[in-house]
Amino acid sequence: MAASAEQINATIDRYIAAFSSADKDGYLGVFAPGATVEDPVGSDVCTGATEIAAFWDGVRGLTPDITLVKTGVPRIAGGEAAWSLRAIAAMGDAKMAVDIIDVMAFDDDGRVTSLRAYWDMAEMAPYED
Amino acid sequence: MAASAEQINATIDRYIAAFSSADKDGYLGVFAPGATVEDPVGSDVCTGATEIAAFWDGVRGLTPDITLVKTGVPRIAGGEAAWSLRAIAAMGDAKMAVDIIDVMAFDDDGRVTSLRAYWDMAEMAPYED
Repeated sequence: MAASAEQINATIDRYIAAFSSADKDGYLGVFAPGATVEDPVGSDVCTGATEIAAFWDGVRGLTPDITLVKTGVPRIAGGEAAWSLRAIAAMGDAKMAVDIIDVMAFDDDGRVTSLRAYWDMAEMAPYED
Repeated sequence: MAASAEQINATIDRYIAAFSSADKDGYLGVFAPGATVEDPVGSDVCTGATEIAAFWDGVRGLTPDITLVKTGVPRIAGGEAAWSLRAIAAMGDAKMAVDIIDVMAFDDDGRVTSLRAYWDMAEMAPYED
C-alpha cells in the first residue's frame, strides 16, 4: 500500500527538521535503502546512503548553517509529493536564500526513495529576515 | 542542448493559455511526439497525441470551463520545471478549485516530453473569486 498523506507529511517535516538542525543521522534516516538524490535536477544522481552522506558532507562543508522553510502545502498523489520550500544559508554575516520545489517518492513505510530538487543557483539572492 | 529557461517559461505560458481557453489544438501543440501525461500522479499514463487528446476530451467533457492560474514562479533545472498552479473549474453556478504542482520535462525545442501533475481530488474546494 502506498504511503499515506500523513506518513508523507511526517517524513517531509522530519527532513526539514534534520536538515535545518544539521542533524546528519536524522537526515540520512529519512531515506530508504538505495534511495536516490538528484539535487539540483540535472546534476549527478547520488544513490544509497554512502553517496547521499557524501552529498550532505559536500553541501554542509560549503555552508554549514542552512535553514529550510516550507513555503507551501505539499501536493500529494500516488505515494509521491511535490512541495515548495526556501533554503536560507548563512554565509558569514550575510544570508542567501533560494526557492525550491522538491519532488519526492516514498516507500510503503513513508521513507524517501527518490528526491529531485528543482532550483537554480542563478536565483540565489541576499535574504533579510 | 537543453531547453532554455526562456523556452520553458514560454511553453508553460502557452500551456496555461491553451488550457484556459479550451483550445485543444493549442494544448496538444505544446507536447513533443511521444510525450507522456500522468495527471494526477498515480493514474494511468497517457502516451502520445492520441492518448493525450483522449485525456483532454475526458477532462473537458466533465468540466468544459477550466481556468489555470500560475501561483508561483517555475523552478527550472536541467531542462525540467516544477511550478505551482491553481485549477478553477466552473460547475453550474459554482466554482471549485484545487492547488497543483506540475512537473514537466522538455525537449531541446522547449516542447513538453513529460507532464506529471501532483494534486489530490480530496483537496478540491468551493472557490470564490
